[in-house]
Parts: sequence; structure tokens; C-alpha cells
Amino acid sequence: MAFNRDEHQHLRFNPLKAEWLLVSPHRALRPWSGQVEPPAPDRVPRHDPANPLCPGAVRANGKITPRYDSTYVFPNDFPALLEEGPEPPHSEEDPLFRARAAKGTCRVICYHPHSDVYLTGLTLAEVVAVIDEWIKQTVELGKKYTWVQIFENRGAMMGCSNPHPHCQIWASSFLPNEPRIKDTNLRDYYQKHQTPMLIDYANKEIQKKERIVYENEHWLVVVPYWALWPFETMVLPKKQVERFQDLNPCQKTTLAQTLQVLVAKYDNVFKCNFPYSMGWHGAPTGQFLDEPQPHWTFHGMYLPPLLRSASVRKFMVGYELLAQAQRDLTPEKAAAVLREMPEKRFA
Amino acid sequence: MAFNRDEHQHLRFNPLKAEWLLVSPHRALRPWSGQVEPPAPDRVPRHDPANPLCPGAVRANGKITPRYDSTYVFPNDFPALLEEGPEPPHSEEDPLFRARAAKGTCRVICYHPHSDVYLTGLTLAEVVAVIDEWIKQTVELGKKYTWVQIFENRGAMMGCSNPHPHCQIWASSFLPNEPRIKDTNLRDYYQKHQTPMLIDYANKEIQKKERIVYENEHWLVVVPYWALWPFETMVLPKKQVERFQDLNPCQKTTLAQTLQVLVAKYDNVFKCNFPYSMGWHGAPTGQFLDEPQPHWTFHGMYLPPLLRSASVRKFMVGYELLAQAQRDLTPEKAAAVLREMPEKRFA
Ligand SMILES: O=P(O)(O)O[C@H]1O[C@H](CO)[C@@H](O)[C@H](O)[C@H]1O
Ligand SMILES: O=P(O)(O)O[C@H]1O[C@H](CO)[C@@H](O)[C@H](O)[C@H]1O
Repeated sequence: MAFNRDEHQHLRFNPLKAEWLLVSPHRALRPWSGQVEPPAPDRVPRHDPANPLCPGAVRANGKITPRYDSTYVFPNDFPALLEEGPEPPHSEEDPLFRARAAKGTCRVICYHPHSDVYLTGLTLAEVVAVIDEWIKQTVELGKKYTWVQIFENRGAMMGCSNPHPHCQIWASSFLPNEPRIKDTNLRDYYQKHQTPMLIDYANKEIQKKERIVYENEHWLVVVPYWALWPFETMVLPKKQVERFQDLNPCQKTTLAQTLQVLVAKYDNVFKCNFPYSMGWHGAPTGQFLDEPQPHWTFHGMYLPPLLRSASVRKFMVGYELLAQAQRDLTPEKAAAVLREMPEKRFA
Repeated sequence: MAFNRDEHQHLRFNPLKAEWLLVSPHRALRPWSGQVEPPAPDRVPRHDPANPLCPGAVRANGKITPRYDSTYVFPNDFPALLEEGPEPPHSEEDPLFRARAAKGTCRVICYHPHSDVYLTGLTLAEVVAVIDEWIKQTVELGKKYTWVQIFENRGAMMGCSNPHPHCQIWASSFLPNEPRIKDTNLRDYYQKHQTPMLIDYANKEIQKKERIVYENEHWLVVVPYWALWPFETMVLPKKQVERFQDLNPCQKTTLAQTLQVLVAKYDNVFKCNFPYSMGWHGAPTGQFLDEPQPHWTFHGMYLPPLLRSASVRKFMVGYELLAQAQRDLTPEKAAAVLREMPEKRFA
């Protein structure tokens, strides 16, 4: 029997993490009698005076959210990272009990004053305003901090505790694990091939046409060959861009379009607000601003948990946590599903 | 101000993964208005003829589960790994599209014929029978396979789709990521120090007494210094043991005691069946059986998601997936909570 990637089990290598993934396409027909997620809340009101993210509402610390009319950024009232604080000693350290200092800051970005609109419901200019805010924050926080992580947890299933459309920024004095590992692998590739890995990757995906979800003049959305989550995607620029702040106005506009289409496609798959965590990675900042980082290509990642329906997710549990990530649905099938979805969200 | 690990943010190093963790104790008082997990199902009936794991029931493939009276092992009807199948070609491979062969087998182990008892409700001899089955499987599958992963997903929150007490074994022809990384780090430590890392670690935790949850003659349960999940624990032998099959009868009996106490403590924290994924790691098998593996110490891991109550979990989402693991509750506080819980489960 000839090997057929759509049917036969195999491992795939993730060159960004130097890790393998187990793909088990034959298992896709497994019945599911396990946990079904609670249904999403009913329609969110446009304005809720009790929601601290709404214009005019009162925050946990007593401050009043101004009557903003575009994006609005404020410090996270319960930050995981503080700008100041005593540092752990690390002289004569035991290799089994190592600690290091961590400094940073956490902010919240509201996308829009209305609680009941998301990216697909905004005008293109309003989405560009969100992108501009992301860039402004990356530049501002990047002056001081090594890593500025912009991320959004969408939906209660992804730990989001506030229905108002917003994302977060956690900026840190240290390079966190994920970008640290990526930095190493991107650097190795660049040294070997003299081209940025992710640009090579984008070009090859454009040729292969097997995992493309969407593309326009400047952007490519693919389900990566090594995708871990069922409908995981990556947003890649078609030309090398190191950081968010290197985008030109035209690339910003087409990125705004890309995000609107991608979210609409996600929402159309199971006719719901598709939950996910998403975020951006680009060349590190802080002290890294001083040297060129040609191995780094700016890109976005969408990590959505749903597998079979609006309420049945992929569980990353026993085997995944203790041994290795595993998926049933192939990246190619997931890409085909997303590709075929309309570019406008169901009403 | 002096640094105080119970109050001030810091990073901790996990020497098994060579990764850092962000600890933010100041954030522990954050209010929670996010997703609350669906309540656990009501009492499970002792015997459900429609449940394929119950004695006498019919499985998905039409086979009948025998009327077993101790443990019972059968092949997973929807295995992620098959013993045979065509292999992907890997000549002239593109570094961005690498695939490898994966072979393996998946089994299910029922702990006991009754659906309504768990480890805490079994006799000590019955728990020893489960341990004996784990060992038997490790030996049998380890002859052919490089890695035999025994794991249990407990509770619907951890993707468990069947309430009958059981665990799984996925054996593979490859060394999965997690044990592969562990192997490298354990080996490096052994080469430097000439002692197994986890035995050194256990001895130091016994001296420090800061993270101990439970100990007896042969076993130590700690919340590791680098624990990622709020109430994560590690079960460590006090004397070097490379693999499950190297335990003597006495170590098996005290391990059975340890597991009963640990589960009782977990269940007592929030007065519920505490969900978790758990599993065992020891020296690799297959071709690795031929060489000594003195750097490997057999150990167990419990990875439970709950944080604040039976229905509020820690979400490993945006920042954790894209940047770095983060926790609010310190490992020392979690250990104190578990340590103080009674050793018998609430009735
Ligand atoms: O127990 P099941 O239904 O086979 O499957 C469960 O555990 C597996 C191994 O961790 C995961 O891959 C599945 O996502 C999870 O639902
Ligand atoms: O949005 P929140 O409530 O600050 O927090 C959410 O995202 C954080 C960053 O991924 C996680 O650490 C939390 O577990 C999650 O609930």
C-alpha cells in the first residue's frame, strides 16, 4: 500500500520548535461522548455600565474608563508582570532551584467602544486603527522591554473573562520560552540558507497550494504543515518584515482585510464566535533593536481549540502533556474547510 | 525591600525541560468572572450495560467485554497509533516539510469491574493489582516499542469520555518530544554530577521540607519547584529506580499507599473528584533496554487544571501558548494546601 498522508499515521516536524507532532488521520471518525462545552452567552449588550471595559464604567481600582471612541489602552488591573519589585538573589545557585528576576507590564487594548461588535463588524478603517494601536504599543514598550507579547483570548473556552472585544499586551524584561526557542531555530535556518525561514516557507506554501486558507497581495494565511490545534493558522507576510512597526500603510490595510476574512471564515465553520488564542511574533525588541534580526519574520498565530462543533473541542491532555502533541484531522483537511468558507461572516 | 518568593514575581527554571516559568504571586487575588466548568455528573452507576468498559458490555467493534474481576486490558477501539501501515518517504527531504514513520499501539486498562469506585475506594491489594498491570504492560510493550506511555485523563474537564475508572497506554516506535527533551537534560546532569538528577532533587526536597505533600518509606510526593499547573505534583522514589519493572514488592505496596493518599488529598481540596492527567516516565525501552540508563529515574506526574474551586480552572491560553507558562499560586502554597489535607477522602 502506498503512503497517503490523508489516511496514514505519521510524524511531522515543526521547524520553529524543533519538535514532532503525531498525525493520526485514521482516528478522525472516533465517536465523542465526552465533555460538551457550555453554550456561549446570549447576545452581549452594546453597552454595559457594569463592565469596566465599557466607556464611562468604573474599573476595579475605582478609575473611570473614559468615553473613548476608537481603541482604548489601559494598564491591566491584575497584572502578571510588574515594572518594579525586589529581585531574587542568584549567587551560588543550585542548578535544581534556579530563579531569575522578571520585570514587565501588562495592558489591555479595547478594540472599539461597543461590546457587541467584533473585527468582522468593524469598518476596515476601524480594524486598521487596532493594527495601528498594536504597532504603537510594540514601539513604545519595545524601547524598554525585550519582548512585547500581544495576544487575544477569544471566548470563555479560552479563559476570556470579559465579553467586550479586547486583547492584551504583556511586555517583559526577558525573552519568554516560545520566542526564545523560535529565535534559535530561525537563526540556525538563516545561517544555513541565508534566507528567513518563514519567507521560504510562505513561498513554498504558495507553490504547493495544499494548506492555503486565504491570500491577498501582501499576506498569506495557511494551516501550517506542523499545526497542532485542529484549525490552527499562521498569518505570514509575502515579503520579509522583521517587526510589526515595519509594515507600510498598504500592508496594514491588507492585513486588516486578512484578519476580517480569517475571523469570518472561522466563525462560519461552526456558526459561532470561534474561540481562539491569537497573537503576534516578530523580532525581539529592547537590546535586540540594536542588531539586525534578518532571521525573524513577523507573523501571526491563531490557536483555536474547536474540533467537531461549536461545543466539542480537542483536549490537549494526558498523551499530549506527557508525551507529544497529536491530531486526527490533517492540516490539509482543516485548510480545505477554512478555504471553502465564505469571506463574510454569517449574519 | 527584600525578595520574598511568596510575594514577589520571578522566573523559575525547570531543569527537566530547560524552560522557564513565570511566577506572579501578587496576582493571586485577581477576581474571576470567566468560564465556570459544567458540574460533574451525578453518581455513576456501579454497572452500566451500555458502557463498553463494564463487564459483559458490548464494545464499538461488537466484541463483548468479559466478566473480569480485577484489572482488564483491551485494545483501544479508536487508536491514535497502529502497529502497521505504509511509511512516508523521506529521501531528499525539504527541512520545512519533514515527515517520519510512526508505529505503535493503544490500549485501555480498566482498574476494577465497578464503575463507581476509584483508587481511594479500592483495597490496597486492588491498587497493587493496578500497579502490577502497569508493570506487565510496560514490560510486554517495551520489548517492541521505544516508549510506553501510561497515562490517565481523569474527569470530563481533562477530555475523559468514559466515567469507568481506567487509564490508557500508548506505546510508540519513536521517543516522543517530552521524554526526548527530558532524556537530554537528565543525561547532561548525570554527566556533570555523576548522580541521577531526580534522586538529587528528591534528597534536596526532603531536606528543604518546603514543597512536600506526602512521604513514606520509599516515596516522596512534592509540588515541583518549577510546577506549571496550580496543584501539579511529582511522585519520586527515594532510591534510584530506572523503570517501573525495577520496583520490588515493598516499593509497590508503598506506591499503592502513596497513590491512595495523593488522590484523597486532591479530592479533599475542593470536595470533588479532582480532575487531572497523570502518567509515568522511566527510562526508554525497546533498543534502550540494551544500555544502562543511570540518568533516568522512574517517576509519576499529576497535572491537574483546577485553581480556585471545583469549577474554576487555570487556563493555559494566550500568553502561555505564545510566550511562557505562568502561575499565580506559588508551588509552596499549593504544597501546603495539599499537605494539610486529610489522607482519607471525604465521604
Ligand atoms: O481518552 P480518549 O477519548 O481516547 O482521548 C483523550 O485523550 C487523548 C490522549 O491524551 C487525547 O488525544 C484526546 O484529545 C482526549 O479526548
Ligand atoms: O485575561 P485574563 O483574565 O487576565 O487571563 C487569561 O489569560 C492569561 C494569559 O494567557 C492567563 O494567564 C489566564 O489563566 C487566563 O484566564
